[in-house]
Amino acid sequence: MSYETIVNQVRESSPLVHNMTNQVVANDVANSLIALGASPIMAYAPEEVEEVASFSKAVVLNIGTLTKDQIESMVRAGKAANKQQVPVILDPVGVGATRFRKQMVERLLSEITFTAIRGNVAEMASLAEVNWEAKGVDAGEGSGSKEGIAQTLAKKQNCVVAISGEQDILSDGKSVVTVDNGDQLMGQITGSGCMLSGICGAFIGANPEEPFQSIIAAHVTYTIAGEIAAKRADVKGPGTFRQAFMDELLHVNQDDIKSKAKVKVN
Amino acid sequence: MSYETIVNQVRESSPLVHNMTNQVVANDVANSLIALGASPIMAYAPEEVEEVASFSKAVVLNIGTLTKDQIESMVRAGKAANKQQVPVILDPVGVGATRFRKQMVERLLSEITFTAIRGNVAEMASLAEVNWEAKGVDAGEGSGSKEGIAQTLAKKQNCVVAISGEQDILSDGKSVVTVDNGDQLMGQITGSGCMLSGICGAFIGANPEEPFQSIIAAHVTYTIAGEIAAKRADVKGPGTFRQAFMDELLHVNQDDIKSKAKVKVN
Amino acid sequence: MSYETIVNQVRESSPLVHNMTNQVVANDVANSLIALGASPIMAYAPEEVEEVASFSKAVVLNIGTLTKDQIESMVRAGKAANKQQVPVILDPVGVGATRFRKQMVERLLSEITFTAIRGNVAEMASLAEVNWEAKGVDAGEGSGSKEGIAQTLAKKQNCVVAISGEQDILSDGKSVVTVDNGDQLMGQITGSGCMLSGICGAFIGANPEEPFQSIIAAHVTYTIAGEIAAKRADVKGPGTFRQAFMDELLHVNQDDIKSKAKVKVN
Repeated sequence: MSYETIVNQVRESSPLVHNMTNQVVANDVANSLIALGASPIMAYAPEEVEEVASFSKAVVLNIGTLTKDQIESMVRAGKAANKQQVPVILDPVGVGATRFRKQMVERLLSEITFTAIRGNVAEMASLAEVNWEAKGVDAGEGSGSKEGIAQTLAKKQNCVVAISGEQDILSDGKSVVTVDNGDQLMGQITGSGCMLSGICGAFIGANPEEPFQSIIAAHVTYTIAGEIAAKRADVKGPGTFRQAFMDELLHVNQDDIKSKAKVKVN
Repeated sequence: MSYETIVNQVRESSPLVHNMTNQVVANDVANSLIALGASPIMAYAPEEVEEVASFSKAVVLNIGTLTKDQIESMVRAGKAANKQQVPVILDPVGVGATRFRKQMVERLLSEITFTAIRGNVAEMASLAEVNWEAKGVDAGEGSGSKEGIAQTLAKKQNCVVAISGEQDILSDGKSVVTVDNGDQLMGQITGSGCMLSGICGAFIGANPEEPFQSIIAAHVTYTIAGEIAAKRADVKGPGTFRQAFMDELLHVNQDDIKSKAKVKVN
Repeated sequence: MSYETIVNQVRESSPLVHNMTNQVVANDVANSLIALGASPIMAYAPEEVEEVASFSKAVVLNIGTLTKDQIESMVRAGKAANKQQVPVILDPVGVGATRFRKQMVERLLSEITFTAIRGNVAEMASLAEVNWEAKGVDAGEGSGSKEGIAQTLAKKQNCVVAISGEQDILSDGKSVVTVDNGDQLMGQITGSGCMLSGICGAFIGANPEEPFQSIIAAHVTYTIAGEIAAKRADVKGPGTFRQAFMDELLHVNQDDIKSKAKVKVN
């Protein structure tokens, strides 16, 4: 399916997305999914996560405000999803920041098969075991390039990898696709990455046969909605932008995507 | 007291409402209660919930992101409230979705006396033990009608029952009242039901002698605020609607209610 | 450094602020810090809080939806911060409301050295052991005056104390400074105090040598942003105000502060 039209699939099928996300952004994740036409469910109790994961169309695990108990629930949810062939998406928030996060993510990666991993370049570099900090924020060459990190990690984990940022860099291990849409206001609100992870879940849930194409569609649709919102006359900073962004996630359509998408296959 | 004027009672007495709600909507619940003139308090620790419930005017238990520990706290809070004749409201979010939620709600219903239960039709049908899923979303006749569910559950639990949706259906077990206000944008934000449960707490807390009348007032006031917000020129989707809705919860008054209320007693 | 210009320091150094805050306001705290140019991190797990506190520029402990487990994590974070000379700020939400909160705050005060404590007058009176409830909301004379409470508590805890309200009263135990900026809309949203505590962390983190001056700057900058937001034509109530406020936290600058600040040293 063309990446321009998967948003229609999301709206028609309204996939149920099981989010185990952090407490800072849970509300934004729910609202962004509803705005796009998907159906969010948040459930954390170990007694119910297997059931919820099994009847959902995608499971999104986000470690932003992780505790040990939650990891147990995430492992249960992820395994149940794997058993039912429900796609699982990982958002390893701040994985490079503490030993605990690194260990917990290693556990998740060893016990669950992920369809996609989405994060910022520092997080993805940490998982790809590339010494990113030492290279500064701008990508160098060779193994330190963002493209290299995405491809390396995609091959290593045998899944789709999305590095989100000013430019998004996506890889399935074979090809690398870049998306150059979005607006700097998206970086001035919390949760813009976490919402995108939830939305990746919705797009893969609506179009599970083509996870790479679905991830491209999620990034393009989301960043174009952000672009449109940022240009609205009623947007005067990050507060009003945030609400306009929610509005435009409802309105963004395939014509917007066709006319604005800056997607390159490398 | 007339349902048009209980909102004045809320603003004058500013009832303290103890919310044990889910982490997705806690912020919205707090802001909507403040906007309406009530005073929210969130407290979850088993060591303090009895104290907080006892000095509050209403306690609202919402199982949206429930864990086993929280159920223990909820039982404590509910029992303490019952002892002090503080009204307790239940919002059994997604009760039909998992066995765990069903069991936990059964425990709450067996240990606590509720003044009111509020939820969507699927949740209320699950509690009334009516096979709702099998009948689709639109109500059939007989025991499967929404009116029947509301009345059956109200009798069974001996409390007021509110089924919220495009049309709200409220019953005290004897009569059934419908409210036809609101706007579809209310269904495009997360937490619109959870906020309403908190607000039911505020209205019952301000007017505890007439719980059914208070629940009617809560639904009418809330949905009319939504209607007014949805018509504002600055509302362009669910994001801007959400903020306009908060504004209008502050402004909505008895004249708005008198001129716009679509309430029917059946 | 002059209190008018510390906001520039926040934007230039973008201090990392470790927030252990309550689940009602976590999102607002994160967004307000980002808007001001600081960098928020939320982390709660006992396994990682020492590490996070140690590499942060400030730690903010907010007991709004406290549980016993979180107190253990807070003690760990606070002690680690003390060891690394990272400033720690306390927001004792509702400390006077329950015995549990009182005990937990006593434990925090006995195990951690705080650079600043921020709260409303009832909370600060409770910590200063002044019988405030009995005096009503408006300050009396002598030990019951707000100035007296601020100074008493600042001496007792050997730290900066901020009583926020319509008028903010700040003391380092020697002098008392009042700030008369802000707007009543700030009192009609949840989290306006909690956000300010986070922002106090950012200002002290950016200018750790002068904690009193930094706290003054935090209050002046924050309340002037609120004033500017409240006057915007697109603000029609607490919902639209909240977003405008976030916008203006991004825009507020030293010229605004110089022309609008109502600061008095008593």
